Amino acid sequence: MEFTELITKRYSVRAYKPDPVEDEKLQQVLEAARLAPTAANRQPFRLIVIHTAGREEELKRIYPRDWFVQAPLVICACAVLSEGWVRRDGKRYTDVDVAIVMDHLILAAANAGLGTCWIAAFDPVAAREVLGLPEDVEPVVFTPLGYPADEPRPKERKPLAELVRYERW
Amino acid sequence: MEFTELITKRYSVRAYKPDPVEDEKLQQVLEAARLAPTAANRQPFRLIVIHTAGREEELKRIYPRDWFVQAPLVICACAVLSEGWVRRDGKRYTDVDVAIVMDHLILAAANAGLGTCWIAAFDPVAAREVLGLPEDVEPVVFTPLGYPADEPRPKERKPLAELVRYERW
Repeated sequence: MEFTELITKRYSVRAYKPDPVEDEKLQQVLEAARLAPTAANRQPFRLIVIHTAGREEELKRIYPRDWFVQAPLVICACAVLSEGWVRRDGKRYTDVDVAIVMDHLILAAANAGLGTCWIAAFDPVAAREVLGLPEDVEPVVFTPLGYPADEPRPKERKPLAELVRYERW
Repeated sequence: MEFTELITKRYSVRAYKPDPVEDEKLQQVLEAARLAPTAANRQPFRLIVIHTAGREEELKRIYPRDWFVQAPLVICACAVLSEGWVRRDGKRYTDVDVAIVMDHLILAAANAGLGTCWIAAFDPVAAREVLGLPEDVEPVVFTPLGYPADEPRPKERKPLAELVRYERW
């Protein structure tokens, strides 16, 4: 899809069909994530691909919505803190890196006709337990991945005049 | 451009032509940023559009490379911390939000034939001074915006096998 159309059409999908995600499409989506730029090209991230079938109750400890486990797959984008670039003043850029990776993944999914939803409001303690994450690995965002069973809603966004400054604050 | 082609073609542009960016293209790029999703739809960001002409030395205090001010425009993506969504455990999502916004902007620029380069290694103290940022506003990433005067280099990325886990860590 053309990029402008793609970002207009992507929306937060909160109902999924049970249909499986074809492996070819999963690989396309992961490949888009792989191409994402990261600070100093450190690529300090890992993607965990989770099949929801049979693990619904366990996964709902991470995010307790039925639609979270309705999709056949859930993807967790993690930062590997020790691999991340840190600026001289101590500012860590792993959240930025993981977000770029997930944005690529989510747009690639929409491009393939798949639905996703950015999830930040998960339980990080449950996520660490269920996914067996080492200390150094931080779960940053989740998304289901599957075919949408709902309809897009119009985007509500602030006007550019509120979001853009020219020259100085 | 088709999305897969677009993410393959985008690269970090480190030499720019002096040609101006047409206002229509600038607005397209800003509009793509505006459409980006953010945690709880808070949209806790501001984009500062800076004309480099005549401000080269001042701007190079922020990031001391000649190519940074070679482009006619520089864009700074800022987080407005007090507007951002924070999870119950205290985890702040403004870096993620600003990164999604900037990823939309950077991909829209490539789609319009414009060059950009993610810059995190700037001097945050100089950025605050030069841009007159209030305490609550954090500069997160910069990019020049202009027509590329260099050539793409092949992307160096880790193989998917190193970046993806299935089911658990």
